[in-house]
Amino acid sequence: MKTYIGIDLGGTNVRIAKVSEDGEVLEQVKGPSYGQEGPEKVMANIKELLHSIPNWQEASGIGVGVPGPVDTKAGAMMLSTNLPGFTGYPFAKELTEEFGIPTFLDNDANVAGLAEALVGAGKGLKTVFYVTISTGIGGVLVEDGKTVSGKHGFGGEIANIIIDRNREKISYLNAGAVEVEASGTALVRKARAIFGEDIEHGGQVFELARQGDEKAKEVIDGIQKDLGQMFATIACICDPDMFVIGGGMMKSADVLLPGVIEHFKSMSHEALWDTPFVVAELEEPGIIGAAMVPKSQGC
Amino acid sequence: MKTYIGIDLGGTNVRIAKVSEDGEVLEQVKGPSYGQEGPEKVMANIKELLHSIPNWQEASGIGVGVPGPVDTKAGAMMLSTNLPGFTGYPFAKELTEEFGIPTFLDNDANVAGLAEALVGAGKGLKTVFYVTISTGIGGVLVEDGKTVSGKHGFGGEIANIIIDRNREKISYLNAGAVEVEASGTALVRKARAIFGEDIEHGGQVFELARQGDEKAKEVIDGIQKDLGQMFATIACICDPDMFVIGGGMMKSADVLLPGVIEHFKSMSHEALWDTPFVVAELEEPGIIGAAMVPKSQGC
Repeated sequence: MKTYIGIDLGGTNVRIAKVSEDGEVLEQVKGPSYGQEGPEKVMANIKELLHSIPNWQEASGIGVGVPGPVDTKAGAMMLSTNLPGFTGYPFAKELTEEFGIPTFLDNDANVAGLAEALVGAGKGLKTVFYVTISTGIGGVLVEDGKTVSGKHGFGGEIANIIIDRNREKISYLNAGAVEVEASGTALVRKARAIFGEDIEHGGQVFELARQGDEKAKEVIDGIQKDLGQMFATIACICDPDMFVIGGGMMKSADVLLPGVIEHFKSMSHEALWDTPFVVAELEEPGIIGAAMVPKSQGC
Repeated sequence: MKTYIGIDLGGTNVRIAKVSEDGEVLEQVKGPSYGQEGPEKVMANIKELLHSIPNWQEASGIGVGVPGPVDTKAGAMMLSTNLPGFTGYPFAKELTEEFGIPTFLDNDANVAGLAEALVGAGKGLKTVFYVTISTGIGGVLVEDGKTVSGKHGFGGEIANIIIDRNREKISYLNAGAVEVEASGTALVRKARAIFGEDIEHGGQVFELARQGDEKAKEVIDGIQKDLGQMFATIACICDPDMFVIGGGMMKSADVLLPGVIEHFKSMSHEALWDTPFVVAELEEPGIIGAAMVPKSQGC
């Protein structure tokens, strides 16, 4: 059976794993990423950790998931807010040369979506759209087992989709962008305007709704409508075989999803109403997905 | 050199051509489609026309472009407003059996997009999004030389994308759907509200704008903003290497496109501003694109 190396790199931590072609994690190491100390330190640390994985030489490919948009052809980050100095850095090339194994770079939401499409909830389907809803909103289209990253690596950067252009502009994103209006951060902001500063996280708002609080239900319904419109828009473009939905907000999928689906239907042609909305099933999509990138490229 | 048969079937006319793998039309026949007389008559007519093409036996595949969404796996139409009786009809199967050549069915906007992506303006690019703007609005994502049709054949059915949910509902489409607000039909409706019933087609409004009429420019700017938002939304999802734009409205691309691109930029991350907007270049994308469907499937 083929194996792949997955590297899940964040601003704070890094995890490296040997993963089977079926998505099983066989070996894993983790540690601090030294993300604030620049590429030289970060790369030396990754190389050391990877060398400590038993039989890394047997891997058919290396995949790296990083935050932000990626130029997948160049194997380099396009923006590196959480990893200073990495914009344009020849990340994939350096690892390919060090280990003699083909290395690929992709965005962390993209690799999570790839994992769900290849070995998770969307396994075996042709067109899978993965959406993650937590403090932010991201996603990716996976077609024929490959992520659609696009010209600038912005494929799936759905945070900036406008769901109501008449709203106030309150961030660098568009006025009425779905991330500004329907992310976990938005839920907390909107709930605080009603319930005050006691609201610390979205889970409290969902719990109030479960207990029957009408104001909490109203806030959530607004977000469900905005998300429903986002999903309806995505369906107009690629009509996925399945929406797979991950991220922290899915801890409250029991409250959130039914209303999202209802609004999706109200804004979609009847033929699309049976589109499945499925909660992501992998516990570690980041590391598994990173390992799946070389597999999706035919390694 | 390989050749393919393309069939461009509408409610009124049908065209059948032998096309080279490079997209050159080698032989062509056309005639009425008898679209109102039901599948038996329509299919008999197609078979007769196809048999009249010299050396049709040499073709490596047959592709058919039809109006409306298509179940590409089943090779059947999902809706057949202009071709009564064809919903669910085993179209591709019947031609495969008659001619002994693998036959594929796809939507007419999809095949036009495929033609532009494979042998037209987007030739050689990985991610092409084709948009047609005429009386209606349609499109398709072509990734790695294949159309993304999706679960129900609704991939690229962008007409129903909501660009402003606060507008009035005036058709079966969503309130504020881009086709309702920014198609050629919408342009005429909006211009008539200002200039009266003398406005018969969109070209008159563009001509008024060219002559400096401020009211015409205002109507067009509203449509440019709606279209700019639609393109910005599509870019969030698939970040195409190129937008290729066809359809009757492109006769006035000189007036229409600059404002569309300006609004697109105002609603997109700076990294996306160099996305090319290119007018479709093929004279007969329907028939060439139909012939390209079997090519895109590896025939």
